[in-house]
Amino acid sequence: MTKRSVLIQLDTDQQPSSFDAIVAVDAGVDVQLRHGNVSLEDVRDLVYGAMFTRSPDDLKNTAIFVGGSDVSAGERIFENVGKTFFGPLRVSAMLDSNGANTTAAAAVLAVLKHVPIDGHDEITVTVLGATGPVGSRVALLLAGLGYRVCMASRKLDRASEAAARIRQRLRDANLEAVQAGNEQEISQTLEGASVLVSAGAIGAQLANQATWSQAAGIQLAIDLNAAAPGGLEGIDPQDKAQDRNGMTCYGALGIGGVKMKIHKACLKRLFERNDLLLDAEQILAVGRELVAQGLNV
Amino acid sequence: MTKRSVLIQLDTDQQPSSFDAIVAVDAGVDVQLRHGNVSLEDVRDLVYGAMFTRSPDDLKNTAIFVGGSDVSAGERIFENVGKTFFGPLRVSAMLDSNGANTTAAAAVLAVLKHVPIDGHDEITVTVLGATGPVGSRVALLLAGLGYRVCMASRKLDRASEAAARIRQRLRDANLEAVQAGNEQEISQTLEGASVLVSAGAIGAQLANQATWSQAAGIQLAIDLNAAAPGGLEGIDPQDKAQDRNGMTCYGALGIGGVKMKIHKACLKRLFERNDLLLDAEQILAVGRELVAQGLNV
Amino acid sequence: MTKRSVLIQLDTDQQPSSFDAIVAVDAGVDVQLRHGNVSLEDVRDLVYGAMFTRSPDDLKNTAIFVGGSDVSAGERIFENVGKTFFGPLRVSAMLDSNGANTTAAAAVLAVLKHVPIDGHDEITVTVLGATGPVGSRVALLLAGLGYRVCMASRKLDRASEAAARIRQRLRDANLEAVQAGNEQEISQTLEGASVLVSAGAIGAQLANQATWSQAAGIQLAIDLNAAAPGGLEGIDPQDKAQDRNGMTCYGALGIGGVKMKIHKACLKRLFERNDLLLDAEQILAVGRELVAQGLNV
Repeated sequence: MTKRSVLIQLDTDQQPSSFDAIVAVDAGVDVQLRHGNVSLEDVRDLVYGAMFTRSPDDLKNTAIFVGGSDVSAGERIFENVGKTFFGPLRVSAMLDSNGANTTAAAAVLAVLKHVPIDGHDEITVTVLGATGPVGSRVALLLAGLGYRVCMASRKLDRASEAAARIRQRLRDANLEAVQAGNEQEISQTLEGASVLVSAGAIGAQLANQATWSQAAGIQLAIDLNAAAPGGLEGIDPQDKAQDRNGMTCYGALGIGGVKMKIHKACLKRLFERNDLLLDAEQILAVGRELVAQGLNV
Repeated sequence: MTKRSVLIQLDTDQQPSSFDAIVAVDAGVDVQLRHGNVSLEDVRDLVYGAMFTRSPDDLKNTAIFVGGSDVSAGERIFENVGKTFFGPLRVSAMLDSNGANTTAAAAVLAVLKHVPIDGHDEITVTVLGATGPVGSRVALLLAGLGYRVCMASRKLDRASEAAARIRQRLRDANLEAVQAGNEQEISQTLEGASVLVSAGAIGAQLANQATWSQAAGIQLAIDLNAAAPGGLEGIDPQDKAQDRNGMTCYGALGIGGVKMKIHKACLKRLFERNDLLLDAEQILAVGRELVAQGLNV
Repeated sequence: MTKRSVLIQLDTDQQPSSFDAIVAVDAGVDVQLRHGNVSLEDVRDLVYGAMFTRSPDDLKNTAIFVGGSDVSAGERIFENVGKTFFGPLRVSAMLDSNGANTTAAAAVLAVLKHVPIDGHDEITVTVLGATGPVGSRVALLLAGLGYRVCMASRKLDRASEAAARIRQRLRDANLEAVQAGNEQEISQTLEGASVLVSAGAIGAQLANQATWSQAAGIQLAIDLNAAAPGGLEGIDPQDKAQDRNGMTCYGALGIGGVKMKIHKACLKRLFERNDLLLDAEQILAVGRELVAQGLNV
């Protein structure tokens, strides 16, 4: 008899995310074991429970999802999950704290569609709010694809730190850390850029319309902020490849539909084998497969 | 494909109620997302998870149940759930902390059956323990139907406060607040009353048999206290329309069977549309529909 | 319509065991209500929820599992669960904190197979780590079957206390408390013994190979320690009735497969009637039935 699929939700928030749980229901997961307020000390026993309860052939029917609003905490949990496995005793696991990995993947798919990298010309993407959980993942993924990424933050030292963290993971990343604390500095970060991605904190406008829409080279602008006011003034949350004055624009909800499809597809992948570890790069790869299969970004 | 039904249990107690969860299982709910120790700060994200995960057409397959032993805390949570929704992004929700709404509705159905209101004559119901969660809801519902309600409590000021709260919700409520701290005062509250409902704290006898059974006008007596000693001496918890010296009597278990049917019917309603908010009045309305369909009260 | 089976997991740890939950999924339980950090104060309401939600005929579809790493805490919870029931209002319940009951039962089945008791000759089993949760249950069960049990611990007073606790439950138990703090003392505890069971703390070697394998009378050696180093040097965790120098040997994983089968069988039993209380002795009885039905120990 086929085992029912079991997803262990390890959430670092006091209340485990209902969002993540309902997405898992709709992805077809049979049983969820939901855990809130998960700390590093909890990881071993919860993961052992996944490793030691089913035969090796059945382990692909058990998986782990790491979530919660604190992305750094989620990263540490996810790393420890991976370290707990040994030999063939492992289950697939996915990290998507704060939806950062799936959101970043969806944004990067839009970049790949509208301003694809060809290997010859340098293409620059400016990421506002590049030190945050989503922004830093957008930068990581784009750099991994060969884009030049201008990582902007209100404070230069924070931007530099975020760039350094990416270089630890991706030595050859073509990154520039810049300070963008006012409209003039933002204008400067847009010089030479073909793409603008805004990934700031919720409800904070990062650039007014005059600033960003006058940047001559920008072909594509993506605002990942769903709550009013948006990060980029003039972009509607519903925008999905919307033309605005010759620029292709995406809002948070326009990206969100794709993000949700990536999220569900990743959850399904978890139950196809028992040795997947889905972090930013692997989640983007799933998104690219969906595009190859016809997903409209 | 039809979405599985998901009920989000928001419980204010440390351990979310197993009672509410099992009733939901038996009402046919597919998946429960159970949350204990829920505070007002938790509401927004948990409700967002319900609002943002399914398409508008599918939102009727998600619902929220607010419970726990602290009815005031549950009321605040329920109010905040309703305020979190916007536009078409909403799911149905039900409040039944401490079973107060479904229990009160079941008691009121018994009143409506045996001492129906006809719009001509004033009918008085005396509620002992009227300041408690169940008693105050019985008073609210009966006043809403046009009964005159004598709200009795050991302390007059508490009875007056409870009556004032009902008048905020129901301006024309025909209410009288009275003090009933001893048998003599209780006798006085029963003068002119046709119905007596006892809704005191668990395990506390509110009136001895000599007092309440000698009240000339009482046709119907309902004791909602399941644990010994009962609130009304001489009523058996199992009584269901039991004749005792010419009075029709109900005990807590006699009411409880109807309460359970109302509870399950309400849970099923939650999944028929995405915009129901079931508080005391709406839950009574469901009960009245069940009676119209043949439910034996 | 048949009610879905509901298992209420009462776990004394902060995070309820994922191990126990997945085993329950695989035993066919439909719905699990999982509770962590369960204290004695929580028991009443959680058990009431089991007692008062389904009709007497349906109560066999609800059951309670008590678990967690703290066996003493689990025992108190389990005792209180039993005391909460009254009359026919009860559901079946099982105690398996730290897997101690199912592990001890599996070990005892191996003893019964290889060194069966015949009622004539005295057979001595030496239990190292006999004061721990698994060791003390192995001693209890073997004494209940008529074996003479030599309960060894590094400290004599702790061994004596553990033996006294067993005698409270089993007056005629043939027990000896001994001190086994070094290899010489361990050698002495093995004199006259036919069976050696090692049930010490995880990752602690209790006896080196020279000591235990030179004990002349030992026919069967069981090491319940899964993590390296094992409790008995020279036994492989995978050993299952493995011959080593004329001794039959079992390691923790060799015992573990049988333990898992007992665990699942007990969970299924819980839903066959509503009045089972499965503690060590009852869980062993289930194991013996499985053996009678052909289970390979």
